[in-house]
Amino acid sequence: MISFENDYNVGTHPAVLRRLEETNLAPQPGYGEDDLCRLAAEKIRAAIGCPAAEIRFLVGGTQTNQIAIAGLLKSYEGVLAAETGHVAAHEAGAIEHSGHKVLTLPSHEGRIEAAELRAWIERFYGDAAHEHMVFPGMVYLSHPTEYGTLYSLGQLEAIAAVCWDYRIPLYLDGARLGYGLMSRGTDLTLEDVARLCDVFYIGGTKVGALCGEALVFPRGGMPEHFTAVVKQHGGLLAKGRVLGAQFDALFTNRLYFEISANAIDKAEKLKKLLHERGYAFFLETPTNQQFLLLDDARAAALAKRVRFSFWEKPDAEHTVVRLCTSWATTDEDLAALAEVL
Amino acid sequence: MISFENDYNVGTHPAVLRRLEETNLAPQPGYGEDDLCRLAAEKIRAAIGCPAAEIRFLVGGTQTNQIAIAGLLKSYEGVLAAETGHVAAHEAGAIEHSGHKVLTLPSHEGRIEAAELRAWIERFYGDAAHEHMVFPGMVYLSHPTEYGTLYSLGQLEAIAAVCWDYRIPLYLDGARLGYGLMSRGTDLTLEDVARLCDVFYIGGTKVGALCGEALVFPRGGMPEHFTAVVKQHGGLLAKGRVLGAQFDALFTNRLYFEISANAIDKAEKLKKLLHERGYAFFLETPTNQQFLLLDDARAAALAKRVRFSFWEKPDAEHTVVRLCTSWATTDEDLAALAEVL
Amino acid sequence: MISFENDYNVGTHPAVLRRLEETNLAPQPGYGEDDLCRLAAEKIRAAIGCPAAEIRFLVGGTQTNQIAIAGLLKSYEGVLAAETGHVAAHEAGAIEHSGHKVLTLPSHEGRIEAAELRAWIERFYGDAAHEHMVFPGMVYLSHPTEYGTLYSLGQLEAIAAVCWDYRIPLYLDGARLGYGLMSRGTDLTLEDVARLCDVFYIGGTKVGALCGEALVFPRGGMPEHFTAVVKQHGGLLAKGRVLGAQFDALFTNRLYFEISANAIDKAEKLKKLLHERGYAFFLETPTNQQFLLLDDARAAALAKRVRFSFWEKPDAEHTVVRLCTSWATTDEDLAALAEVL
Amino acid sequence: MISFENDYNVGTHPAVLRRLEETNLAPQPGYGEDDLCRLAAEKIRAAIGCPAAEIRFLVGGTQTNQIAIAGLLKSYEGVLAAETGHVAAHEAGAIEHSGHKVLTLPSHEGRIEAAELRAWIERFYGDAAHEHMVFPGMVYLSHPTEYGTLYSLGQLEAIAAVCWDYRIPLYLDGARLGYGLMSRGTDLTLEDVARLCDVFYIGGTKVGALCGEALVFPRGGMPEHFTAVVKQHGGLLAKGRVLGAQFDALFTNRLYFEISANAIDKAEKLKKLLHERGYAFFLETPTNQQFLLLDDARAAALAKRVRFSFWEKPDAEHTVVRLCTSWATTDEDLAALAEVL
Repeated sequence: MISFENDYNVGTHPAVLRRLEETNLAPQPGYGEDDLCRLAAEKIRAAIGCPAAEIRFLVGGTQTNQIAIAGLLKSYEGVLAAETGHVAAHEAGAIEHSGHKVLTLPSHEGRIEAAELRAWIERFYGDAAHEHMVFPGMVYLSHPTEYGTLYSLGQLEAIAAVCWDYRIPLYLDGARLGYGLMSRGTDLTLEDVARLCDVFYIGGTKVGALCGEALVFPRGGMPEHFTAVVKQHGGLLAKGRVLGAQFDALFTNRLYFEISANAIDKAEKLKKLLHERGYAFFLETPTNQQFLLLDDARAAALAKRVRFSFWEKPDAEHTVVRLCTSWATTDEDLAALAEVL
Repeated sequence: MISFENDYNVGTHPAVLRRLEETNLAPQPGYGEDDLCRLAAEKIRAAIGCPAAEIRFLVGGTQTNQIAIAGLLKSYEGVLAAETGHVAAHEAGAIEHSGHKVLTLPSHEGRIEAAELRAWIERFYGDAAHEHMVFPGMVYLSHPTEYGTLYSLGQLEAIAAVCWDYRIPLYLDGARLGYGLMSRGTDLTLEDVARLCDVFYIGGTKVGALCGEALVFPRGGMPEHFTAVVKQHGGLLAKGRVLGAQFDALFTNRLYFEISANAIDKAEKLKKLLHERGYAFFLETPTNQQFLLLDDARAAALAKRVRFSFWEKPDAEHTVVRLCTSWATTDEDLAALAEVL
Repeated sequence: MISFENDYNVGTHPAVLRRLEETNLAPQPGYGEDDLCRLAAEKIRAAIGCPAAEIRFLVGGTQTNQIAIAGLLKSYEGVLAAETGHVAAHEAGAIEHSGHKVLTLPSHEGRIEAAELRAWIERFYGDAAHEHMVFPGMVYLSHPTEYGTLYSLGQLEAIAAVCWDYRIPLYLDGARLGYGLMSRGTDLTLEDVARLCDVFYIGGTKVGALCGEALVFPRGGMPEHFTAVVKQHGGLLAKGRVLGAQFDALFTNRLYFEISANAIDKAEKLKKLLHERGYAFFLETPTNQQFLLLDDARAAALAKRVRFSFWEKPDAEHTVVRLCTSWATTDEDLAALAEVL
Repeated sequence: MISFENDYNVGTHPAVLRRLEETNLAPQPGYGEDDLCRLAAEKIRAAIGCPAAEIRFLVGGTQTNQIAIAGLLKSYEGVLAAETGHVAAHEAGAIEHSGHKVLTLPSHEGRIEAAELRAWIERFYGDAAHEHMVFPGMVYLSHPTEYGTLYSLGQLEAIAAVCWDYRIPLYLDGARLGYGLMSRGTDLTLEDVARLCDVFYIGGTKVGALCGEALVFPRGGMPEHFTAVVKQHGGLLAKGRVLGAQFDALFTNRLYFEISANAIDKAEKLKKLLHERGYAFFLETPTNQQFLLLDDARAAALAKRVRFSFWEKPDAEHTVVRLCTSWATTDEDLAALAEVL
């Protein structure tokens, strides 16, 4: 059955597999001290325009969020996030397991707003009893958000300005960063992300890798003894080379950007097709995730012919479903979908 | 200066001090194995009508919440509470420090609603991805709430019914339980609380003790090796007798209820006085906490003559303040207040 | 039955009760911001000769250790302690519950040795894989130790020198500090403790208080937002005055030292009595705890007439028992004991 | 330079890479619900002779230990391990980070002994104050141990008997399990491991995979909602297929056993070579790790021509080094080593 279920339903880009293969039998030091991690980090530094960036390769998104947050927060601090943010809603309490509260802000199609963030922090410090509360120790946002939406450059600058005023680090979860950067309407570049955030990660798992995320401290400042922090969270791969080789391939000849652009290209065609067929959008987005509002019978019928994600039940008769394109989506996939819509 | 600041601004009822004194030099075993804890527990069992109840005396409210929750939840479970609940807002992340998320429900003047609770749980189990989320492992409510409001018998029964349907333990934070039970309009008795909750605590700190809360498992079921859990959280007093003696005094000759009734009596007089003087209530409650809406100048002037708590700023020109009565409030205090209002 | 079971088997010194009584009904701010805590802290600053000391009153020993350690360590750090240290052996995993490993050193009648400490740290930093291990973030020692033994000034200076060389904070658990300071042979003063340690606590629970320990940062440096850390661990008393009043009484007119001296005086008489009666010591100590080696029949017979603590079974026929004096032991207690020995 | 540094210095067996390649573009469900994980689990069930086994694929060894332990222990329980066990010494506090103490037993060339285990548990339960201590909630052992040594069938049966008597789960860390099973002298089979342990893992990372460990509950009993536990620890791979494909390849046509046997074959040749050349063994083992005692000059000279691991400094003039063979070691590697020895 054709699948638009998510952006991690197939393996990896052939160039990534090839890099794993061609480096497979060369002995390398363990734990990320290998040449492949070193090479990959250099290429990422060049791509983000930050020669002093410190970079650590980790395995998955939840792990990366957990380690970045635990590594940067003091014990009495929490992380501010949209109530729909991945760390707030879909990590099974990974952040709380490390002892930190996720403090929530309203979600605007997945985004937080600078003014609401500032108001929250002002209210916090204005409260005489704030030492009985969890301190804001980090601002978390995802770009694209969990709803496929994007921050504009202006929006991110406004949030970064609040963070700067209160000296709160700004962290960007880039699980799908490539799809955001290649989106047609965006005015936010990778260099902007690196300039405005204190730490962010470039997602591999959902953008063409088998697994792996690159955690970036663009101006340095990786927490001291970060290897111990990573190890303590079970995130230190003996064969760090597996992550290094993948990111080395993804950041050679702009592969990461090209395959991200493919997902956007296919998403634009998908949106066009859905509009032509008269589908109602619950949320039409500029990235690779599209949300449709279907009546239940239609949703059930369609589910027999194409794989997609059930998202939510807005009322008793309707269902919101998500269709995803990815780095791997082909025109053939779209043609097959056109047959069944 | 006269003080209506809170219900823990003076020491303890003289009968409690007397009990500490008269038992002071008799050798007793440590760690809550003493005769005083045993006696106090027996009197509480009688008061709640639960001969099989298991009871543990702890030092303070946050500690009691933390230990009760950590003792009952599995690692992947969180506790459902009103977003204004003490565990959600004012414990500096004590629950998260033990690894558990506080899952929030809307607050209705401090209360949660059974229908919203049921809807939350149904949505949780209806979500195909719920194993990526924090499981609901307990329902927390405070009675009186942080806003001085109360659950009716019907409301508590409805919440307990939801908990029962999903086999989720119901926990009641009774930091000010006495004031709720002695409230004039309430139809909820201590026996009801014991019948409907799986675990609750009878607050001492805010109802006449120097310190101490009695954590009650009305039908038994105290977690195995609970002493170790308490010790692990730093909550095991070497001289448990200090807590036992206090609760022994409080549950002798219904002292706990009588001094709670005094706070209600004084609160009723306070409300009458405030109405007579034309004060606007932000929230008028049936218990010992009253919330006034003052313009800022009035609030500032009043603050020079009486101690109260600043609660919040609803807008640029007004302030919400809280005035509390307690077990210790006297008619002289009210007369002195009448002078300055 | 007469009791030499432990040093927390009776309540509190009458002067402490009196101070609670005479301050009982004066309104005071909550959470340790009261006049009594302020007064007590001033008196302690004078007693230790450190005008810049920062002091926080907490409820019990395990709680104090847990909070001091969690407040000072980074997430990847552990605390070095004797394998018999309270934090290592008898706190039900309170330190690990806060995420920190207790790293153990050999115990020499309860003490650690400076040379072994230095060797441990050198081996740690000499190991190429030390980022895969728990970093030494604090040195913990108890004085008196769990075996009633004491550090000499020279021993403590040597340990402090190692800590200084590696910039590792030195923490002293003074649950029974008074008994150590009043010991007849000691050359270690309270001023020495304050000079050599980065943080320590003056125990109240076992030296005449109902409950309470004074955590002291002799040269300041209390962790930022320490109130939040204390709250997060469930250690913040609403009526902090209860602790303040007790330490105020204990540090008025050198009461703490006088009642500690009583325990030593009675311990010296106890040792003399035991020697006269031909008892074999397992460990004879300069403080208030004495350890006897009894054959099992003798231990069982004695247990019918006097309360003491069973300590351990060194072999199949013998039992080690502990007899404690305390601030409250009287000559009548000793006379009664002489009858049954 | 030739490398005998460790058993994870090259990538993966070509058959594993091939399996990743040939399954690469087939859409599969995420999070371990894919056909490859299903197939791999079936093959492992067959290999261990336990049709009811429940199996979960995780990424690395520390992560697997952390999740298995956290998933099975109650909050007040710890894990008993040799003081040299990986969880005790080399996981940067990952176990403590999850709130659990590692309780240590003496190491006998890496092994624990049944009699010492039983004595520890008896002493624990015999101590009247054991509720002030960390309960033994699991017994951990590694096979092969961190020193390359092995348990005999009789030794493992004796340990399992103690565990059974006290109903404490027995957990075996099989990071290098293949090398243990293929060792020439061993009388312990994979079926024995599955029969005697409650949970164990079959290591992939050090035995031919890129990454991945198979956590096995041979008679079922995987903790409820284990996916949530895994997710909470950051261990849930979106593309679980990556692990499934690797273990599918490793357990097809006994590949796992054959490549393990290669490491043993090469280790036997290595030992012979070392003996011929007159090298002194610090520890000669029946598996793929060999420990030599070299004088420092010799160690330094050798380090210029072959990569190995520095292990420890037994005295001022000598160094213990480790040489490892692995699934990938070739006769050419040994010939090259022979040149430089």
